[in-house]
Amino acid sequence: MICCLDLEGVLIPEIWINVAKKTKIKALEITTRDEPDYDKLMRYRLEILKKHGIKLQHIQNVIKKMQPLPGAKLFLRGLQKKYQVIILSDTYYEFAGSMMEKLGFPTLFCNWLEVDDKGFIANYHLRQKNGKKQAVRGLKGLGFRVVAAGDSYNDISMLQAADRGILFRPPPKIMREFPQFPVTHNYQQLFAAFHKSV
Amino acid sequence: MICCLDLEGVLIPEIWINVAKKTKIKALEITTRDEPDYDKLMRYRLEILKKHGIKLQHIQNVIKKMQPLPGAKLFLRGLQKKYQVIILSDTYYEFAGSMMEKLGFPTLFCNWLEVDDKGFIANYHLRQKNGKKQAVRGLKGLGFRVVAAGDSYNDISMLQAADRGILFRPPPKIMREFPQFPVTHNYQQLFAAFHKSV
Repeated sequence: MICCLDLEGVLIPEIWINVAKKTKIKALEITTRDEPDYDKLMRYRLEILKKHGIKLQHIQNVIKKMQPLPGAKLFLRGLQKKYQVIILSDTYYEFAGSMMEKLGFPTLFCNWLEVDDKGFIANYHLRQKNGKKQAVRGLKGLGFRVVAAGDSYNDISMLQAADRGILFRPPPKIMREFPQFPVTHNYQQLFAAFHKSV
Repeated sequence: MICCLDLEGVLIPEIWINVAKKTKIKALEITTRDEPDYDKLMRYRLEILKKHGIKLQHIQNVIKKMQPLPGAKLFLRGLQKKYQVIILSDTYYEFAGSMMEKLGFPTLFCNWLEVDDKGFIANYHLRQKNGKKQAVRGLKGLGFRVVAAGDSYNDISMLQAADRGILFRPPPKIMREFPQFPVTHNYQQLFAAFHKSV
């Protein structure tokens, strides 16, 4: 069995919310929880960053000071001991690098940023459209049973594509909209939900 | 970029050769390097094990005493720091578990064993036919550049399917048969070969 985990909100705090806090730019607090249209959300973020003169390295420095959610590393180790784990995220390798080191380098499927000569984020490159869902389908195509867990709108198609989907600390709105997915509130419950899905 | 690594001969010693040594059953020393037909090889191995009364746990105990190849963990950490890594192996989760822990739980795509009531290995289940090659194709289908490294006959189709294939300490016969793949002899060279493939 392969466990596919969302990253932000499941193993680490929301990167953009932390960047918003540290830079004190309120407009950056909007996430996929609020705006399901990812391209719209990203174009908006890149515009804001440019307007405020914030470069990639600035964001990387904020992320380097972040820590995984309490208990995340232990939970991940426990899961890796029993199953194969792949993290499916809409974030970028340029952002997630330092967090991956703190989590012991789990395998991460995400996206790439394009940086200009001056160090500003010029553009973003999705690995493919609907990357999370496509990854689940691809892994199923390799003969694996796939169970996926996530917390936001951008996880729903991944949860639907998996053999079993699990919600982890979702906002009430998502819980109500997708009652078919079991809801877990802590790592013990999430581990048990994976274990029940074998 | 995703680096696909063979396991035995690249990160850890050959499991079957170690089992052969510890059990002193010479007939178990044959590997995919000698017998390219994997099904023939496995049916032969399971027959030998049954004949000698060797159970799964016996083999697991041998493997638990094995160590990764010298420098393997450091090499793997270095690779994971720069790229995503997935280990593609024809071994079995029931065998590889303790070695994966020693390597820091990298993601492993391999196969399953069926164990009978008495603890004997009754059968083996391939995740799919040509599992290594199919995994490389699947990962390419997810939008990744894939570079693969291996040492034996069962790695060749994976090396051919990848955007770039690298041989690591291959037997001279394989080197001569597949001159299209660069040959590396230590982890420094292997790391450099991956780095050159970006």
